Amino acid sequence: MNQLNVCLSPSLIPLYNVEDYVVVIIDIFRATSSICYGIENGAEAIIPVSEVEECAAYREKGLDYLLAAERDGKVVDGFDFGNSPFSYTKEKVAGKTVVLTTTNGTHALHLSRSAKKIVIGSFLNLTALCNWLKTQNDNILLVCAGWKNNFNLEDTLFAGAVVDQLKDFEFKLDDAAIAANDLFQIGKHDIDQYLKKTSHGERLKKLGIEKDIEFCLQVDLTTAIPVLTGEKLVKLIS
Amino acid sequence: MNQLNVCLSPSLIPLYNVEDYVVVIIDIFRATSSICYGIENGAEAIIPVSEVEECAAYREKGLDYLLAAERDGKVVDGFDFGNSPFSYTKEKVAGKTVVLTTTNGTHALHLSRSAKKIVIGSFLNLTALCNWLKTQNDNILLVCAGWKNNFNLEDTLFAGAVVDQLKDFEFKLDDAAIAANDLFQIGKHDIDQYLKKTSHGERLKKLGIEKDIEFCLQVDLTTAIPVLTGEKLVKLIS
Repeated sequence: MNQLNVCLSPSLIPLYNVEDYVVVIIDIFRATSSICYGIENGAEAIIPVSEVEECAAYREKGLDYLLAAERDGKVVDGFDFGNSPFSYTKEKVAGKTVVLTTTNGTHALHLSRSAKKIVIGSFLNLTALCNWLKTQNDNILLVCAGWKNNFNLEDTLFAGAVVDQLKDFEFKLDDAAIAANDLFQIGKHDIDQYLKKTSHGERLKKLGIEKDIEFCLQVDLTTAIPVLTGEKLVKLIS
Repeated sequence: MNQLNVCLSPSLIPLYNVEDYVVVIIDIFRATSSICYGIENGAEAIIPVSEVEECAAYREKGLDYLLAAERDGKVVDGFDFGNSPFSYTKEKVAGKTVVLTTTNGTHALHLSRSAKKIVIGSFLNLTALCNWLKTQNDNILLVCAGWKNNFNLEDTLFAGAVVDQLKDFEFKLDDAAIAANDLFQIGKHDIDQYLKKTSHGERLKKLGIEKDIEFCLQVDLTTAIPVLTGEKLVKLIS
C-alpha cells in the first residue's frame, strides 16, 4: 500500500527517503499560494530563491525576469514586487519568468530535491492537486515549509485538507497525516477564524497583510499544478 | 508573559533556546510512564541510557543496579527486566537504582541537557506535574520524544493534556501547543481508542504489550515528579 505521509517541518525531511515519494511543498502564507496563482495566470516559470541577493543576481543575467523580494512586508527597493498573491495577476506575470524570494519555501524545496517529483500545493489549487495525486499510484509526502524550520498550523491544516480528500483511497497514513487531518476537521468550517489564534496569524496581522491571508485561504480558485523542472516551477501538463 | 511551547520531535529541540525553559520530557509508550511509576514506588534513582551495552556496563561497576533492557518487546538475556511499567512495582524497585535503556527518551533528555530544569511527564502523574508547573513562573517546553526522531500522536496528545491544564494561566502558546491541545480535545474521551488508529498503536500491538499501553494511559495514578540531577532521575522534593 502506498504511504501518505505529512512532514511537519523542513527539519524532519531527512527522516524520509524522499526519493521514494512524490512531494508536495506547502507554504500557505504566502509563497506556494502566490506560485499557484502566478502559474495559473500564465507565468512561464517561477524560480524560488532563498535570499534577496540571489534574486537580485538575476537582474545581472540581463534577461527579462520579474524580481519579487520582500522584507518585513515591504517590497525591497529596486524589485518589481513582493510576495503578495495580488502581484501575480495575469496582467503582471503572463508570459514572464518570476524570481521569488521565499526563505521557508525554498528551504523545503531544496531539501526535497531528490524526490520523484515535486509539485506545489495551496488552498487555491487543492482539489486539482488532489485529483492529480490520486492518479499517481505512488507514495506521497506533504512537506510543510513551516516557520523558521518549525511547525506551523496553516501549512499543517492544508496538509490535513489534502489527507481529507485522499484518505478513502488506498494509502497508509502516518501519525502526522492523522493529526493534520484531525486538525483540519476542527478548523475547516472557518479556517481564517481558526488560524487567528495562532502566533503566525498575529505576526502576519502586524505586517498588514490580512487581505493576502484571506486570498490565500480561498479554496479551488485555480486548477494549475506547478511542478519543479530543474530550478524552475512550471505548469504541469498531465 | 511566559511561553508554553511544545516541541513535537527531538529533531526540533535545537530550534529552542533550551536554557530559557523548564523542560518536560514525554515518552508515553513506555519510558516516561515507567519512570514515573518507578519513582513513585520508591526507586532511589533511574538512570536512562540509550544503548543496551551502556546499560550492561553498569553491571561491571559492581554496584547494586537493576538493569532494564528490551529489544523487540523481550527482556534481553542477562538483564533484570524490560521497559514494562509492571516491572517498576514497589516490590521490585523500592530503594534501588534502575538503569533503563530507552532510545527515544534518552535522546530527548540529552538534547535538553542545558535546560533550567528537566522533569518527566506521563499520564500517570499529569495533574501533579501540572500543579508544579503552575508554580514555576517560567517558560515551559514540553518535549515529545516521538518515534525515531519524528512526530508521534501519543506524546503529542499528552502534551495537549498539559496545555489543557495550563492554558488558562498566563502563558503564550505556540502553534504546536495549540495543535497538541486541539488534538487532545478530540482524543480525550477515549485516548486508548483514539490512539488505536495510529501506526505506533499497530506496532505496539504486534509487540503484545496492550496491557502496558492501557496502564500507561491511566491518569493521575501517581504524584511523584521525577527530576534530572546529574545523570540520574530522582524524586523532586518541592
